Amino acid sequence: MTINIIGSGKVAFHLSKRLHACGLTIRQIYSRQLDPALQLATAINAQGISRWKDVQADGVDLIIIAVSDQAIPEVAKALAKHLPNPPLVVHTSGSSPLHWLSDVLPRTGIFYPLQSFSWGREPNFAEIPMCIEAQHPADEKLLLELGQRISQKVQLTTEADRKTLHLAAVFVNNFVNELYQIGAAILAEKQLPFDLLLPLIQETAAKVQAQAPAEMQTGPALRGDLATIERQLDLLEAHPEWRELYGLMTGLIRG
Amino acid sequence: MTINIIGSGKVAFHLSKRLHACGLTIRQIYSRQLDPALQLATAINAQGISRWKDVQADGVDLIIIAVSDQAIPEVAKALAKHLPNPPLVVHTSGSSPLHWLSDVLPRTGIFYPLQSFSWGREPNFAEIPMCIEAQHPADEKLLLELGQRISQKVQLTTEADRKTLHLAAVFVNNFVNELYQIGAAILAEKQLPFDLLLPLIQETAAKVQAQAPAEMQTGPALRGDLATIERQLDLLEAHPEWRELYGLMTGLIRG
Repeated sequence: MTINIIGSGKVAFHLSKRLHACGLTIRQIYSRQLDPALQLATAINAQGISRWKDVQADGVDLIIIAVSDQAIPEVAKALAKHLPNPPLVVHTSGSSPLHWLSDVLPRTGIFYPLQSFSWGREPNFAEIPMCIEAQHPADEKLLLELGQRISQKVQLTTEADRKTLHLAAVFVNNFVNELYQIGAAILAEKQLPFDLLLPLIQETAAKVQAQAPAEMQTGPALRGDLATIERQLDLLEAHPEWRELYGLMTGLIRG
Repeated sequence: MTINIIGSGKVAFHLSKRLHACGLTIRQIYSRQLDPALQLATAINAQGISRWKDVQADGVDLIIIAVSDQAIPEVAKALAKHLPNPPLVVHTSGSSPLHWLSDVLPRTGIFYPLQSFSWGREPNFAEIPMCIEAQHPADEKLLLELGQRISQKVQLTTEADRKTLHLAAVFVNNFVNELYQIGAAILAEKQLPFDLLLPLIQETAAKVQAQAPAEMQTGPALRGDLATIERQLDLLEAHPEWRELYGLMTGLIRG
């Protein structure tokens, strides 16, 4: 299978490298800036381009759009304009609708990796759920097969499913990371090292791999230990926004 | 070193077993209910008791109180009442003051494992920060040595440090677990399996083992993607408390 990638950000970077490593051919990497396109393309034996008129469709089975959500509609329009006979085009976004593609292109779908990618961290693709949608059964089959080449966890989703998954992902990833950051800030204010929290963070995430989070809860809120809750709210006096969060989370845990 | 343990809950259970496995002698396990005391005592070659008058102090170097925070003052008073010559007595609580012990007992301290313990999960004690305080230097030395027998991470703390650590622990453990639970509930409502979030949860926790959480943030709030934020708030319409949490966390991430 021959694939073109639109984008050179974190998703484009990690996905291209994984596809290449699994034996798929990446022909072109398009980016608005030529330098990042060339850089990524060089690593995976592809061509780096930055002009829409250079995008090729002949012999290309799939174009993967891996750009910021906001940029997806304009990319779809640019592809529709410059490609007389476009192949299957998918985007990789958890929260963006399929119609941003299907409004202007004949064969479209979704190829959404349910993971948060970072520069400098190699993702474990075999474990990443690949969420698949397509308008046409033949394209769905093609995307399922592609998903299975790079991951052991391929999931057919509806658009509603995918948006639900993305919303839940924001809670367990972005919001969790923000709680890590608040924990780090609470310690930093008192010159205590964040390292002291790392075993606890690791254990909390490890626990829910095997058991439901509802069964794993501990702490003053669950125990209804109002004296500790009051003392902790006092400690947060200088940070009204953390105090508000503490109150809200404590209420949710107490139920 | 010979140790008595007061309590038979999760902390008492895991700590006793670790101390025993590291070659320390646990002489007695006290619990208000005899059955759990006997059960734990049997596993570590100790005596299970449930009456204060059966607690021995002769030849005992240390009594570790591992009970709920609220019960610590009454346990301290019971020990003071029943032991004419009490040894060093410590509690294992992150948020409880030392004076609950030192008000009534001559030699007191803290032996706080910074971890959340669960039934049915073997903790990795070598990695657990052991936070140590004592009134007297000789007792501090004794507790440091004991800490080093069971963990590679022993930390001398002040009472203020310990309370700061416990507060931060509530954010990165109890509140994080609550976010996992909300993520699970969001998926359950749409009959989607929680399993799909597990690789993301694992990766988010793994990332902060090596890098500061501030550097690892991703998602719609960080990108200022207001359209996605609005769509996700709409999805939460039936859950005003999650919606409020979403708004608060999004505001904190946006800064």
